[in-house]
Amino acid sequence: MMRTGRVEAFSDGVFAIAITLLVLDLAVPPLEESRREGLWAALGHEWPSYLAYLVSFFVVGIIWINHHTMLTLVDQVDRVVLFANLVLLLFVSVIPFPTRLLADYLLEPEGHVAAAIYSATMLAMGMAFSALWLTISARPRILRRPLDPATRRATLRRFGAGQVIYAAAVALSFVSAVATLALHGVLALYYCFDQLTPSGGVDET
Amino acid sequence: MMRTGRVEAFSDGVFAIAITLLVLDLAVPPLEESRREGLWAALGHEWPSYLAYLVSFFVVGIIWINHHTMLTLVDQVDRVVLFANLVLLLFVSVIPFPTRLLADYLLEPEGHVAAAIYSATMLAMGMAFSALWLTISARPRILRRPLDPATRRATLRRFGAGQVIYAAAVALSFVSAVATLALHGVLALYYCFDQLTPSGGVDET
Amino acid sequence: MMRTGRVEAFSDGVFAIAITLLVLDLAVPPLEESRREGLWAALGHEWPSYLAYLVSFFVVGIIWINHHTMLTLVDQVDRVVLFANLVLLLFVSVIPFPTRLLADYLLEPEGHVAAAIYSATMLAMGMAFSALWLTISARPRILRRPLDPATRRATLRRFGAGQVIYAAAVALSFVSAVATLALHGVLALYYCFDQLTPSGGVDET
Amino acid sequence: MMRTGRVEAFSDGVFAIAITLLVLDLAVPPLEESRREGLWAALGHEWPSYLAYLVSFFVVGIIWINHHTMLTLVDQVDRVVLFANLVLLLFVSVIPFPTRLLADYLLEPEGHVAAAIYSATMLAMGMAFSALWLTISARPRILRRPLDPATRRATLRRFGAGQVIYAAAVALSFVSAVATLALHGVLALYYCFDQLTPSGGVDET
Repeated sequence: MMRTGRVEAFSDGVFAIAITLLVLDLAVPPLEESRREGLWAALGHEWPSYLAYLVSFFVVGIIWINHHTMLTLVDQVDRVVLFANLVLLLFVSVIPFPTRLLADYLLEPEGHVAAAIYSATMLAMGMAFSALWLTISARPRILRRPLDPATRRATLRRFGAGQVIYAAAVALSFVSAVATLALHGVLALYYCFDQLTPSGGVDET
Repeated sequence: MMRTGRVEAFSDGVFAIAITLLVLDLAVPPLEESRREGLWAALGHEWPSYLAYLVSFFVVGIIWINHHTMLTLVDQVDRVVLFANLVLLLFVSVIPFPTRLLADYLLEPEGHVAAAIYSATMLAMGMAFSALWLTISARPRILRRPLDPATRRATLRRFGAGQVIYAAAVALSFVSAVATLALHGVLALYYCFDQLTPSGGVDET
Repeated sequence: MMRTGRVEAFSDGVFAIAITLLVLDLAVPPLEESRREGLWAALGHEWPSYLAYLVSFFVVGIIWINHHTMLTLVDQVDRVVLFANLVLLLFVSVIPFPTRLLADYLLEPEGHVAAAIYSATMLAMGMAFSALWLTISARPRILRRPLDPATRRATLRRFGAGQVIYAAAVALSFVSAVATLALHGVLALYYCFDQLTPSGGVDET
Repeated sequence: MMRTGRVEAFSDGVFAIAITLLVLDLAVPPLEESRREGLWAALGHEWPSYLAYLVSFFVVGIIWINHHTMLTLVDQVDRVVLFANLVLLLFVSVIPFPTRLLADYLLEPEGHVAAAIYSATMLAMGMAFSALWLTISARPRILRRPLDPATRRATLRRFGAGQVIYAAAVALSFVSAVATLALHGVLALYYCFDQLTPSGGVDET
């Protein structure tokens, strides 16, 4: 058993780095292209890189807020929780990779492959988040205060709904990569606003 | 509601990473160029990269100090504050991108586009900072001690003045990219010294 | 003598950054290759990069958990501990380099050189970890509670066993680079599950 | 005035990131070169990159330990201290740049320019460190316990001696770049061992 504090510090570090590393893949247009077409036009061609950045930034930001909310319920963590947390961090810290892939391939004929990998990463991340929640909520002795079973199930259902949408995004990828990225953007916006209502989040009950 | 501590830890992480990632765009001159012209001359050609680094470093540093000062007023944060903070972090963590763009394009005929994007990022960041201040100062129950309305307005006015200057920098970009970068440098220096006087900052009253 | 807190914070930072920087070396296939062969096939060719990422991620994650567990025993640190910790952090923060090397060279005829360097890094890291443990456990006045000599020796033996396996991995490198990476993967999985049993780790006694 | 904790957290973040970003410049030899000459030989050619990494790693590590030691004396920080700290962080976070420059140019005819820039960065960093010490030690009200003037002067003298050596390293650069890097390595080793003796550091009196 160990204090939650250092798990939070390490997790916060990974979240903060993953969200900030995204900026490294924002594409500065090559000089030759800008000289030929003008810088505004050259920047315009890079829009998939900017849109993917924006969506991934808010996705990581929202997971961080949810992670934070979840850990406020916890007093101490054991090794199983640490490990479940590490698996979640794997999918968080990998997000810059599918983001770069989607940015590079969005307008290619095979953009659907990149969109499917992006969506599958979100799905895996959502599943890791549910697994962490299941692990934590099944350990009454590590919780700060007892968790009522109805809340536990309601939260799981909310997470499950998110995963159904991510699975739908995997399917949508094979129809349109651009629509898939738009769906992830809408979803991130939805979660942001959901966070702002009293009914959002884990700790509202 | 959650403790301010973890928001600070995450925000500090993003600030620290954004300020340190800037170094990745400091250009080491290519060997062929240095062999032809000498290393001092080749380094000299990269001055836009070094100047842009310096200005952005102090801009992020000053925002960090102001952010820190602002959060000392706050005891707990709710989801709206978290979200307003996330939007501020978006504009902080994106700063390495306009910095790289400005460094690459400063001496190009279209440098004014890069300067305008750099200035617009600063303007957006300033607006996000004001929005966070409005959000926090409108929530008496999250504050450590009540905030007197005159201080609140005075602080908003100071932020507003900064945004007017940033808007002017957007306009100046279309006259001269180099002058715009110089203005941002002077502004950063001004804020640094302003920080050193008792009247600077949010918490002086 | 200083508080353990800041050593943990700095170490957590290094661990979190090292584990997250790994993502920068996940290879997005070049456009020409994907257009020729298809994106799935082109991604398939990059499997050494993905496998090396996964193995290194869990290796760093497990070291972090062990480091965390070890420092829970410690109340204050002196300069010798700080220095032993810095040497461990050297081998942790360098891990993205042998990971990139192994990913690039795994399928080359000289992959065994890359595998040997990867394995030697793990061996050096394991030795630095043992040295930190020896340093800490030999300093009763910095420990939170006395450490029983049998536990100390048992822990050293467990670390020693790990180093024997890493040494074997160095030898295996000259037989097969792929088998060596697989061994590191199995080892990481083993340690993960070992962590999940009550007998794992430093603090179980 | 604000708590020292958040300054430490931000500074630790910058130190941890600067020390870990160094790994990004460890050169993996290009495939064609390794295929022609063998991987061991190709790695051998990259030794300036590995040596510069090692030296810079310990330089940043030692500054971190000293910074840590210095801040244990401090209870609260005001804006002047914050600003002096920011200037120190500027020179810490820029270290990956002269490291990369020196690694790329060490064996070039103009390696002395790179060595001089590397040494000048260390000199500037040392001067920023002394300035921070002067700023802190001149503010009795922010110190945890009064500082005796003899200690203050002794510490300043030790810092001053370090800066004389860094100035000598700038001069040595124009004789031999390799000797200059070796001097920095010896100096880092010396400081490491100095740290391990009871007389080392700021807080020993």
